[in-house]
Formats: sequence, C-alpha cells, structure tokens
Amino acid sequence: MTERPPPGSARPGGRTARTRTAVLAAALDELDAAGLDALTLDRLAARSGVHVSTIRRRWRTVEGVVVDLLAQHYATIPTPDSGDFRQDLHELAQAIANFQAAPRNYHLIEGIVAAAAHDPGIADLVRGAFRARTEHVTQLVRRAVDRGELPPDTRATEVIAALSAPFYYRILILRAPVDARLVHTSAEAAYHAAHAGVFDAQAPAGGPSR
Amino acid sequence: MTERPPPGSARPGGRTARTRTAVLAAALDELDAAGLDALTLDRLAARSGVHVSTIRRRWRTVEGVVVDLLAQHYATIPTPDSGDFRQDLHELAQAIANFQAAPRNYHLIEGIVAAAAHDPGIADLVRGAFRARTEHVTQLVRRAVDRGELPPDTRATEVIAALSAPFYYRILILRAPVDARLVHTSAEAAYHAAHAGVFDAQAPAGGPSR
Repeated sequence: MTERPPPGSARPGGRTARTRTAVLAAALDELDAAGLDALTLDRLAARSGVHVSTIRRRWRTVEGVVVDLLAQHYATIPTPDSGDFRQDLHELAQAIANFQAAPRNYHLIEGIVAAAAHDPGIADLVRGAFRARTEHVTQLVRRAVDRGELPPDTRATEVIAALSAPFYYRILILRAPVDARLVHTSAEAAYHAAHAGVFDAQAPAGGPSR
Repeated sequence: MTERPPPGSARPGGRTARTRTAVLAAALDELDAAGLDALTLDRLAARSGVHVSTIRRRWRTVEGVVVDLLAQHYATIPTPDSGDFRQDLHELAQAIANFQAAPRNYHLIEGIVAAAAHDPGIADLVRGAFRARTEHVTQLVRRAVDRGELPPDTRATEVIAALSAPFYYRILILRAPVDARLVHTSAEAAYHAAHAGVFDAQAPAGGPSR
C-alpha cells in the first residue's frame, strides 16, 4: 500500500485514511522485526511507501506513530457485554492480560511510557489514547448501572481504571509477567469495590467511611 | 563528605556506607537542581567528592544511583500501624500520594521506568526496590490478619499492590496528578477486596466466583 504523491489524485479523506493504514501497518511490521529502539521515521517511510515528510508532519516522531498504533489497536477490542457486570470485568481483565502477554505489546507500552517521560508531546498523546480507550470501555459499567447492578452515581472511568491499574503496575513497576491470578484478583477487586459503592460520585473525598 | 582514596584507611563497611550516603545525597541535590535528564556520573562525582570510578563500579549508571535513592527513601517511610486495617490503608495511600505529589519524586519514578525500558539491569534494580518496599509494608496486612480482620491466607503482597497500583497508573498511564479522591478510592477498594477474600491464597485462579 503506497501513498500517491500527486495532490488531488484521491479524496483527501480517503488518502489520509490510507496513509494512516499504511504507516501503522509498517510500524507493526517493524516492531515485530526489530523492536521500538530500532524504529526510525526513515524505516517507516521505506516500509510504508509514504514520504518521510508526510509521516513527520502528521505524527512528528516515531513515538507519535506508536501511540497512534496503540490507539488503533484499542479501538478494535470489543467491550465485553455478557449481561453480567462481574463476568464483563473478568472478560475485560482477560483481554488486557492477553494484550500485555504479547512481547510486542509489552515493549510497545514500555516504550511509550519511556518516551512520554522525555517528551510532553508524547505524554499528551498517551493521555489521549488511554482516556479514549477508558471512555469507550465504560459502556460496560453504564450497562451495569442501567441493570441496577451498581449504584446509579458510579463513576465509570474509576471502575475501569481500578480494573486496569494492577496490570500496568505489574509490568512497569513490579516488572513481572501478568498471570491468571492477576486477571482473577483484578476483576474481583474492581467488582467488590464497585459493588460496595467505592466509586460512587457521592462518596467522601478522604478518610475511612464505614 | 568525601571518600578517602587510600584503601584500608577506614573500616570497609563504614567507608562503603559513607560513600553511599555521599553519592545519594549528591543525587538528591542534583535532581532538585537540574532533573534526571541532566544527571551524569561526573556531576555526581563532583558534588559528592567520590571518585567517578568508584560510583561506576558500585552503581554502574546514573539510573542505578537513582533507583538506590528511591530504595533508600522507601526504607525511611514508616509502615502505618493505627491498630485498624482500613485506617492503615488510608494512611499508606496518603503516604504514596504525598510522595508522588512532589515533582522531584514524580520525575524520579518516571525516569526510572523509562530507564528500565532500555536497560535490563535497571529493570532488575527497579524490581528489587519495589519488591523490598512492598515486602516491608506487608506488615500492616499481617497485623490485620493477626487481629482477625482478614482471612488468614490473605496474600499480603497482593493487597499492597492493589492499593499502590492506581497511583502509578494515574501518573504513568493516565498522566494526571494524584488527588484526595484517588487516595480515598484506592484505600477503600483495597479494603473491600481484601475483606471479601479476593486476595485469599485459596481463591480460584480464574473466572468469577460467587
């Protein structure tokens, strides 16, 4: 898949979408072949057939491309909808574990977090990608509220963050692989906390409450 | 505080301890003055009065020094011991929030995670520092078990990880500051999950259990 250089040879929207598809596919191939540290804009250009200046204009850096790749991937993971909140949490936890278990994805997350530490622009991209992902998945919490499984004022983003956090803590801080036990405890912990009203918007802001 | 170059001029243990104190104090000063990106072994040597070859032999890299600084800091934070498990969790959550709220510490954590992404040696140091810290703090869980507040087979490290994870997820992934609400929800979520037996060693490894 190559970009056609002459402007106006395709609808701008269509060409833009094709450019994105080509560059992200190239990034995925390069990550598989050589990893994030070896990735350069020139390699992406060579593999995708898109001019390096186009890539630089749109994504600015290699890390910008990689965050977009992560965002694209996240957009393809379906939000669990089993009809049962607890089951949905277990399915989502398993999906996160499956994603992180692939070395490519593990290195992707690690590389993005590292890049964000040194570049505020990348940090903004990471924030945006994870917020969009979280927002998307909150559907499963809102459905549980609609079914009467959770307090009506439950903050859905907090439930999703509570479920997700242990996985990132495990790989980035404890630096150990995710496992079935973590899938189980993360889903169950989020379930019990949400069920107890911990994420209720009306809950007090500090101190124990019995 | 300077190291005395001639070997044998002080007890090795004493000199080693003084070297560590001098280098870590210098690292803290440098981090305050210029941040992690500007830190070099030469600057550490100049500020601490310890030979750069000694620093390199012991810590290998700047990041090695910084992880050791983090480990030293963690060792000084007292483990909460209020006599009440839930209160202890809130105090520990507040301590984590206080630590991360200082820009110096925030950048320290971020820098360490970034360095670990590119250097397996640093990754080992990070793993060791956080495991030691976690292990130390598990006392509060074991005391709760002894008081009969938690199931006897509760895995203490899992409780501490569950409490800690949301703070690291917030700053590294969601890239937003910690706040009083996060202190509250993290402590309460860990409390309800532990109380419900989620971290019981006998719990099943996968799937919802009612």
